[in-house]
Amino acid sequence: MKVLCLNGPNLNLLGEREPGVYGATTLETIRERLEEQAAARGVEVTFRQSNSEGELVTWLQESRRKYDGVVLNAGAYTHTSVALRDAIAAIRIPVIEIHLSNVHAREDFRKQSMIAPVCSGQISGFGPDSYFLGLEAALKCAQACKKNEDK
Amino acid sequence: MKVLCLNGPNLNLLGEREPGVYGATTLETIRERLEEQAAARGVEVTFRQSNSEGELVTWLQESRRKYDGVVLNAGAYTHTSVALRDAIAAIRIPVIEIHLSNVHAREDFRKQSMIAPVCSGQISGFGPDSYFLGLEAALKCAQACKKNEDK
Amino acid sequence: MKVLCLNGPNLNLLGEREPGVYGATTLETIRERLEEQAAARGVEVTFRQSNSEGELVTWLQESRRKYDGVVLNAGAYTHTSVALRDAIAAIRIPVIEIHLSNVHAREDFRKQSMIAPVCSGQISGFGPDSYFLGLEAALKCAQACKKNEDK
Amino acid sequence: MKVLCLNGPNLNLLGEREPGVYGATTLETIRERLEEQAAARGVEVTFRQSNSEGELVTWLQESRRKYDGVVLNAGAYTHTSVALRDAIAAIRIPVIEIHLSNVHAREDFRKQSMIAPVCSGQISGFGPDSYFLGLEAALKCAQACKKNEDK
Amino acid sequence: MKVLCLNGPNLNLLGEREPGVYGATTLETIRERLEEQAAARGVEVTFRQSNSEGELVTWLQESRRKYDGVVLNAGAYTHTSVALRDAIAAIRIPVIEIHLSNVHAREDFRKQSMIAPVCSGQISGFGPDSYFLGLEAALKCAQACKKNEDK
Amino acid sequence: MKVLCLNGPNLNLLGEREPGVYGATTLETIRERLEEQAAARGVEVTFRQSNSEGELVTWLQESRRKYDGVVLNAGAYTHTSVALRDAIAAIRIPVIEIHLSNVHAREDFRKQSMIAPVCSGQISGFGPDSYFLGLEAALKCAQACKKNEDK
Amino acid sequence: MKVLCLNGPNLNLLGEREPGVYGATTLETIRERLEEQAAARGVEVTFRQSNSEGELVTWLQESRRKYDGVVLNAGAYTHTSVALRDAIAAIRIPVIEIHLSNVHAREDFRKQSMIAPVCSGQISGFGPDSYFLGLEAALKCAQACKKNEDK
Amino acid sequence: MKVLCLNGPNLNLLGEREPGVYGATTLETIRERLEEQAAARGVEVTFRQSNSEGELVTWLQESRRKYDGVVLNAGAYTHTSVALRDAIAAIRIPVIEIHLSNVHAREDFRKQSMIAPVCSGQISGFGPDSYFLGLEAALKCAQACKKNEDK
Amino acid sequence: MKVLCLNGPNLNLLGEREPGVYGATTLETIRERLEEQAAARGVEVTFRQSNSEGELVTWLQESRRKYDGVVLNAGAYTHTSVALRDAIAAIRIPVIEIHLSNVHAREDFRKQSMIAPVCSGQISGFGPDSYFLGLEAALKCAQACKKNEDK
Amino acid sequence: MKVLCLNGPNLNLLGEREPGVYGATTLETIRERLEEQAAARGVEVTFRQSNSEGELVTWLQESRRKYDGVVLNAGAYTHTSVALRDAIAAIRIPVIEIHLSNVHAREDFRKQSMIAPVCSGQISGFGPDSYFLGLEAALKCAQACKKNEDK
Amino acid sequence: MKVLCLNGPNLNLLGEREPGVYGATTLETIRERLEEQAAARGVEVTFRQSNSEGELVTWLQESRRKYDGVVLNAGAYTHTSVALRDAIAAIRIPVIEIHLSNVHAREDFRKQSMIAPVCSGQISGFGPDSYFLGLEAALKCAQACKKNEDK
Amino acid sequence: MKVLCLNGPNLNLLGEREPGVYGATTLETIRERLEEQAAARGVEVTFRQSNSEGELVTWLQESRRKYDGVVLNAGAYTHTSVALRDAIAAIRIPVIEIHLSNVHAREDFRKQSMIAPVCSGQISGFGPDSYFLGLEAALKCAQACKKNEDK
Repeated sequence: MKVLCLNGPNLNLLGEREPGVYGATTLETIRERLEEQAAARGVEVTFRQSNSEGELVTWLQESRRKYDGVVLNAGAYTHTSVALRDAIAAIRIPVIEIHLSNVHAREDFRKQSMIAPVCSGQISGFGPDSYFLGLEAALKCAQACKKNEDK
Repeated sequence: MKVLCLNGPNLNLLGEREPGVYGATTLETIRERLEEQAAARGVEVTFRQSNSEGELVTWLQESRRKYDGVVLNAGAYTHTSVALRDAIAAIRIPVIEIHLSNVHAREDFRKQSMIAPVCSGQISGFGPDSYFLGLEAALKCAQACKKNEDK
Repeated sequence: MKVLCLNGPNLNLLGEREPGVYGATTLETIRERLEEQAAARGVEVTFRQSNSEGELVTWLQESRRKYDGVVLNAGAYTHTSVALRDAIAAIRIPVIEIHLSNVHAREDFRKQSMIAPVCSGQISGFGPDSYFLGLEAALKCAQACKKNEDK
Repeated sequence: MKVLCLNGPNLNLLGEREPGVYGATTLETIRERLEEQAAARGVEVTFRQSNSEGELVTWLQESRRKYDGVVLNAGAYTHTSVALRDAIAAIRIPVIEIHLSNVHAREDFRKQSMIAPVCSGQISGFGPDSYFLGLEAALKCAQACKKNEDK
Repeated sequence: MKVLCLNGPNLNLLGEREPGVYGATTLETIRERLEEQAAARGVEVTFRQSNSEGELVTWLQESRRKYDGVVLNAGAYTHTSVALRDAIAAIRIPVIEIHLSNVHAREDFRKQSMIAPVCSGQISGFGPDSYFLGLEAALKCAQACKKNEDK
Repeated sequence: MKVLCLNGPNLNLLGEREPGVYGATTLETIRERLEEQAAARGVEVTFRQSNSEGELVTWLQESRRKYDGVVLNAGAYTHTSVALRDAIAAIRIPVIEIHLSNVHAREDFRKQSMIAPVCSGQISGFGPDSYFLGLEAALKCAQACKKNEDK
Repeated sequence: MKVLCLNGPNLNLLGEREPGVYGATTLETIRERLEEQAAARGVEVTFRQSNSEGELVTWLQESRRKYDGVVLNAGAYTHTSVALRDAIAAIRIPVIEIHLSNVHAREDFRKQSMIAPVCSGQISGFGPDSYFLGLEAALKCAQACKKNEDK
Repeated sequence: MKVLCLNGPNLNLLGEREPGVYGATTLETIRERLEEQAAARGVEVTFRQSNSEGELVTWLQESRRKYDGVVLNAGAYTHTSVALRDAIAAIRIPVIEIHLSNVHAREDFRKQSMIAPVCSGQISGFGPDSYFLGLEAALKCAQACKKNEDK
Repeated sequence: MKVLCLNGPNLNLLGEREPGVYGATTLETIRERLEEQAAARGVEVTFRQSNSEGELVTWLQESRRKYDGVVLNAGAYTHTSVALRDAIAAIRIPVIEIHLSNVHAREDFRKQSMIAPVCSGQISGFGPDSYFLGLEAALKCAQACKKNEDK
Repeated sequence: MKVLCLNGPNLNLLGEREPGVYGATTLETIRERLEEQAAARGVEVTFRQSNSEGELVTWLQESRRKYDGVVLNAGAYTHTSVALRDAIAAIRIPVIEIHLSNVHAREDFRKQSMIAPVCSGQISGFGPDSYFLGLEAALKCAQACKKNEDK
Repeated sequence: MKVLCLNGPNLNLLGEREPGVYGATTLETIRERLEEQAAARGVEVTFRQSNSEGELVTWLQESRRKYDGVVLNAGAYTHTSVALRDAIAAIRIPVIEIHLSNVHAREDFRKQSMIAPVCSGQISGFGPDSYFLGLEAALKCAQACKKNEDK
Repeated sequence: MKVLCLNGPNLNLLGEREPGVYGATTLETIRERLEEQAAARGVEVTFRQSNSEGELVTWLQESRRKYDGVVLNAGAYTHTSVALRDAIAAIRIPVIEIHLSNVHAREDFRKQSMIAPVCSGQISGFGPDSYFLGLEAALKCAQACKKNEDK
């Protein structure tokens, strides 16, 4: 099984950016731990980050032929991007929406997610653990998809 | 470690109620699997369901002395109950909000959660797996709490 | 045929409570007349009242095995209860929403019904006659259900 | 006693128009059955349909001298017509608002009724039975009016 | 000079309809007094009433060649009719919006006027005097128009 | 009979201020013409202007013992002043709300009048003629008040 | 093939009404050109205009048996008429919504179309060309319908 | 005189729950001081707390025969409970709404009170003193009621 | 201890203004009783009224050096004045917001208080007793402030 | 004449993405047919697609010197992009907004177009035919522009 | 050149009022520094403060004959005063809106400025430097005005 | 000191794009003048423009190590970009939001700034002078930052 982990704008600053909100762990550290967790389960994880909405859309589009699931931390684009929403609806593999912080406890505009209605599910508020729980969720959804296709 | 798993109104009908939305697994089956999962990790899980908002509030209040964390599927009360919100804010152990269905892909009134801002985090959309991921999340949050207290 | 007539909060004060709005007939009198009307049609009516949202949910859940239809005056919970809405959607027998007063001619918050979209239909504004028309409607809906099942 | 049954725009297509929503019974059939029901009760029913808001207003105005009550399926004008509302408020006989479908389970704009606050009551969601229940309700309201006048 | 006085739906019931709101004077009486007032000023008044939005639109269209101004009590259509608004904007003679009652002291939907932004001005709340003040206003606006054209 | 004509903020700049909107006539000229019109009818007019909300409130309060009616161009305070509204409701003589421009054809915030629901009526859009029509309206309302008191 | 071209209120004033917004071409000229265009394609066009909402509804109802498609410029009723919407949904031939002006660049209330969700598509902003493009679109939609029926 | 002091959900945690918001005094301490204050005035106070909306409704209903006034801290139900509102409107003794914290300085949803319009008055923001001021207010309202009844 | 009692616009008409809403007691009578109550407690009360928002702001500013607390009935300015709000936030002595009538049972715009979030607490609905309860509350808040400063 | 046909995010997946909504024709096929249609009319069409908002803005900017008109299917950016809107307003050649699906019959957020007010017109709902009608419209608008410039 | 610097309510408390928000510099100090800055540029500055909306309106009106520009810190009236807005629109010299704090980072009601649309520009968030930048801006706008007049 | 001046979408068209709104000065000219102004103060300015939201985010991120302040004209992204907001909050150097036009006097959607709450301050409405005032403001904010760090 292969899983794509996509990260949106400003997540490259993780560990340095507003640590009171987002914690002190860097994205590089999360990537390493996620790869370990994946390896232990015989799964391959590809990890990417971009500040560009269009590039994230393109990566999502390409994922439909290459991956069994996506763990997506869309960052700021979560709340405004119809383009990401359309890309998720267009590809037919499960996409898990994750957030480091509890977005529901922050500004009002962060409570709205443009992509939530087309994702398989959401996980938010657990810091780096949101990634690890997200990987578990992606694997379960991908297995359920495979079962359905086998029928 | 001890975790309380609380279930709100109509969840006792699970497996029978709108299976297209909520799946065919019963709450009893979820309880059994969750207890197995917990036992394998040396954790004790208590599992309860009530249709009464007041009873759920009381159980949450009582949990603050007896449990290290709560996995809460508040069902319909998620969207309207200020009383549950106040109870969660009053007790000081981590509460994980979970949902079987992807609430963001349903009616508008289900997109609003009164309790989300005071929970540690949310997990929704993975069917019975929301419970199992919720237990993992609760354990991680409880461990983090303990570490903070030890300091 | 068996029909359950459920009454929500404060309806036990009927006849005494704001008679300008709700009339001078007591709930006891309505129960007697409804039982007479039902008996004349060879139908059995069970009549219940509760101030507790959870208890009303539980009674609705139990009704799905025992009754052919429900006449529901949910009172104040009409406007706020997602839990009642979910219970009505979960049971598969017809539920008729009734109101003594014309809720559309009162405060704005009474114009919204959380349960209307999942009920078979609504009858409001006819005082105690709302119950008697509600029983007729419930019988017609229950018969239509039976016909569909026989096919 | 004499009752006017008024039907608004597009109801002349009943049976043919969106049968999934409005059923397969034609307006002509409803008229016949309603006349039978009325005859059995010694009541005279007049049945009319128009696509014109102004004509419906005029018919309502004229009814105040000739009928004891009105059963009104205002169709699309239910949601937008202040003119119908003013006409109902101007005549002093009871007007019963009816709908074939459960308007509360459809598009948002159908949930608002401009005429509900000035009608005696509403009945919706019972298909052709909404007419028959509406006639019963109109007779009861008309009798109550007469009693009040006799005092 | 020639002035058209147009009256919308239900105004034919004036004097009989909700006298607490609209007063006891009939439309016929208003017509007579308005004609007297006009005659005393050497002005010709044409007085019309219709319950039909389309007929009012047509009369407004026709007025542009025959009259110097319009006194318009659009009644219920004031609040909803884009068609009347477009007709008023299309003809180039002054239109004075009048109301018998103080629409701003009534239901919220009566506070919004679809036609106000394209009328010359509004007069409301003076009972039958709104017509007499409206005629004065129409004459002044018509004279101002003539002056502009003469330049 | 005695009538008070009250003018709110910035009306002292009339003739000079945004002539495209408010015209070229000064407030002084309006005062003179209004006094002539009043004198011709045997009525006494007092004319005042203030930029201060509190002073306008005080003048309205004092008017209740000295005048038979008020013609009020509250200017900017029309749209925001609860204090003026309360003052108008407190005194028991008729107050006529007037505006030079058609406020309904301007910015949205000018379409709302805080004082309209407690005034006898409104006249707007006729330039200086709004004052002259306002005086006529005030006299008619004052006469109607006197008749009611005489009964 | 036969196509009905329906025109709503005030379109009979075209060429004369607000030429800055709607252009200087008359409806009669558009009719002639549209008939030429249709003839060149071997299609028959019927062209109608009415200021009455009810009449437009009736014409739409009648079209379902006689025409293969409708080009509809509903004018002012576009924004308010649920009755037109229901008529379009009831007949099963394609209806193309057209507008002369770019309705999205005008007042807010013109940006909302009650009929758009039940039309096949919309064309707006091209002046008289909206009609010619609308005819092309209607023919394509009608052909697609025929193909589907033939299957 | 007899006064009922009713306390809603989570108030049993007072002193322990979010002391930064609600203070460190327990509900038990407030009860004792309130009873002393009442005794000093020859008044009997009954003190109750429940987490259940239905139980609070029932207690309010029962109070109408037994008490002269109610001091009500409805807690979280203040903001959502139509059932409590209906109960307060149904009983005819004065009900004083109180809050420990200044609800207007907190989250938006706490600024809305469903029960305020049917209470005699509100007191909020004074910590435990809200109870003592509430008792004074209840006594004054009860005395005023008695005077009115004696007339 | 010294307490300032400030009164906003139109309160000088008390006893005369809308007695159905505000009662028949004059502001002068309230002042006398409040001074008696204060004297009995060894407190000095200064009592002022103004119709001017700016004057009320200035008096509040001056109070910070001279008084231990303020009882403020801001009248109409309660609902609109950011300037009063800023003044209350700027001075550091407790300000108690009071209202004679139950503002929550009146027009919607009276339900919003611009000043409530920066006051110590609110008391409303008890007629003249709101002043007497307000004085008690101010004394308690002032004592609490003093205690804090002494620490 | 030269026309630019610009396509926004996810349109490269056409034919594969949600065929129930967008149809089975690929963007490549549309390009070929559009080029044929253009060639037959002696027009040159350039066809481009990008997932990047910034790249679409840049292409629009560059078009002002090289093309006579633009056919723009902005996809998801239609609903959110102020940057595209500003680019369209900045260049002075006609831009035709097109959509494959009937955006008015879909989610609410798709009913709002940020770019519509600055485009020449819109065409939506005709599948690939929206492109062919769009080209016709662009040619007509470009010719009208040329005529104006020639004057 | 002469510039008026106007200051609204509560700014006289600057340095003392909420120093966390507004800083520790007094208004007197700002006046002195601004006069120095102006003197260095050969400009005369007049500095005024008032708590009264009406007085600020009057000062603005008077400025049109005496000053070349206005630096306006309207304080609380920024958000509510239509009267100030009308005064700014009436005088024809440039008015620069300034704020000490970043009003966009504070309460929602401070994000709305009633006066911004009629000012030349805004400067906010720079503490006392907002005044110094405001003076620069006023001088530049006044020079641009003079140039236009000279043409 | 080093300052970055960042420019968003369509600003490269300045001087050519809608000169009535944005003026006739090109961005190149502004750059030259700003560099002169900076040189005169011994400051280094880097000037950049991009149509891509992602590129602007990246440039902002990079600025945190290289510059002492940022002057940001985010153009269209001002109103929609959460990503820019997050980038500004993440870097710890002062960012000054500037606009050429008075955004508050334009379309409603331009009145909302997503980035304002996290910028140091805003300057808008002064054409190219907004840049020069922005540079002054950035220098003052950077100096204040340095002082704080030195403590």
